[in-house]
Amino acid sequence: MKKPIAIQGIKGSFHHEVVQHYFNGEAEVVECMTFDSVIDTLLEEQTDEIVMALENSIAGSIIPNYALIDNHNLSIVGECYLDIQHSLMALSNQSIEDILEVHSHPMALLQCKVFFREYPHIKLVEAKDTADVAKQISEQNLKGIAAIASKNAAQLYGLNVLAESIQTIKHNETRFVIVRRENNHTDNAYINKASLKFELDHKRGSLAALLNVLSDCKLNLTKIQSLPKIDTPWKYAFFVDVTFVDYKDYEKAKSIIGLMAENFKILGEYKNARL
Amino acid sequence: MKKPIAIQGIKGSFHHEVVQHYFNGEAEVVECMTFDSVIDTLLEEQTDEIVMALENSIAGSIIPNYALIDNHNLSIVGECYLDIQHSLMALSNQSIEDILEVHSHPMALLQCKVFFREYPHIKLVEAKDTADVAKQISEQNLKGIAAIASKNAAQLYGLNVLAESIQTIKHNETRFVIVRRENNHTDNAYINKASLKFELDHKRGSLAALLNVLSDCKLNLTKIQSLPKIDTPWKYAFFVDVTFVDYKDYEKAKSIIGLMAENFKILGEYKNARL
Repeated sequence: MKKPIAIQGIKGSFHHEVVQHYFNGEAEVVECMTFDSVIDTLLEEQTDEIVMALENSIAGSIIPNYALIDNHNLSIVGECYLDIQHSLMALSNQSIEDILEVHSHPMALLQCKVFFREYPHIKLVEAKDTADVAKQISEQNLKGIAAIASKNAAQLYGLNVLAESIQTIKHNETRFVIVRRENNHTDNAYINKASLKFELDHKRGSLAALLNVLSDCKLNLTKIQSLPKIDTPWKYAFFVDVTFVDYKDYEKAKSIIGLMAENFKILGEYKNARL
Repeated sequence: MKKPIAIQGIKGSFHHEVVQHYFNGEAEVVECMTFDSVIDTLLEEQTDEIVMALENSIAGSIIPNYALIDNHNLSIVGECYLDIQHSLMALSNQSIEDILEVHSHPMALLQCKVFFREYPHIKLVEAKDTADVAKQISEQNLKGIAAIASKNAAQLYGLNVLAESIQTIKHNETRFVIVRRENNHTDNAYINKASLKFELDHKRGSLAALLNVLSDCKLNLTKIQSLPKIDTPWKYAFFVDVTFVDYKDYEKAKSIIGLMAENFKILGEYKNARL
């Protein structure tokens, strides 16, 4: 039996693409309508692993998804990068001139706005999910309507791709993470990346001092983001990703950070997907 | 004549509240449907100043708005913090039991979802803008429909507040900035905060070294965020906010950053709104 992996969205979505790629076809997606319900499948032990977008090169970090992992004390056990490419698709007997309306997620419509300037006869209509529109067009044989979704969705729902890579910014790389209830890795040999969270007082040089330690321990920083703690003025939380060659260097850094920072927490230890 | 300040949204929106507060009632808002069109009023010299949300404590930085300022070489000349509080409002002859539907922006609906669990008879409907729903209810005398918006909007459109502070996370502080085509301040005396952008190679310790300089120059970091440069692997852009007491310290830091980092750019120099 294939293992169930919960995602936000349906088959044909970008999350689905990540599941197929990361698990080499050995997984079955559990379709959820919201990120909250994705997390629920994990908490209620309907799934042991989920896939969730965590940041992208256009919008930056998806802080609410960070908060879901952090608040529920879940653990990142892997990551996967996907270059989001939007295609325009419709029933196979339709050309772009036949299309009167394009339905898609507001974010997808926004990213493809420039493309549609050449087709002023097409009305842009907001929908809940990109892949779901493709599914509806196929199942209900909807003429005159096109979807913006992945090529994967076109194939899955038997639609014809009218145009490829129609988004304005040609590269929108999104980072997805694989999340479990706990990180029960027993072998440290393959671990060369970690996601950390810690808090520092608003004291001049406090972050610089901590980054010096990471550097001295031969850790490389691949991401840093500060978030002010609303209920504790002058305290900042930092989300940091580090890569390393030797797990022992990382262990040393961990013990020092534990002394220097408050509320130090490891959000995940995993294999760097970008080598 | 009051000076025109463009905002995304209409009167009664949170952006409008910021304009009233920051300009002490000496400004007239220019209502725009998108952030892009807000920027257009500035580029086409219909306005000399605009107000734009830049980050909030729930979702973090609004990277696309950072990109608008950066790509058009605009300048941040001021900032303002607002604690976003959502109220439920309807026509004055309506009680919460009379309400069948609540229309609001998807983000506002999401933030208030928990409140509506107690009212399962109310249907949540997505709308484009929070304040606009309040306006429609008022103008079209819509019964059975409520809006989620600011108390400001209730007052402006003559609606009755049925419940206050209905969002799940009680503090959602949003940082707004005041933006001009260029920063033409002549007096440095009141300047004690700056927004900077620079790029660094992915070399171990490069960020730590730069933060050491900021600390040595007596600058305090109030925000840091890394963004990988998609078209240039292993390069990172950093958005950093710093505060300082003496403008000379900041000038010294600027000249050193210019030597250490690439594509160093000052996004704004202004007065810290949090003292």
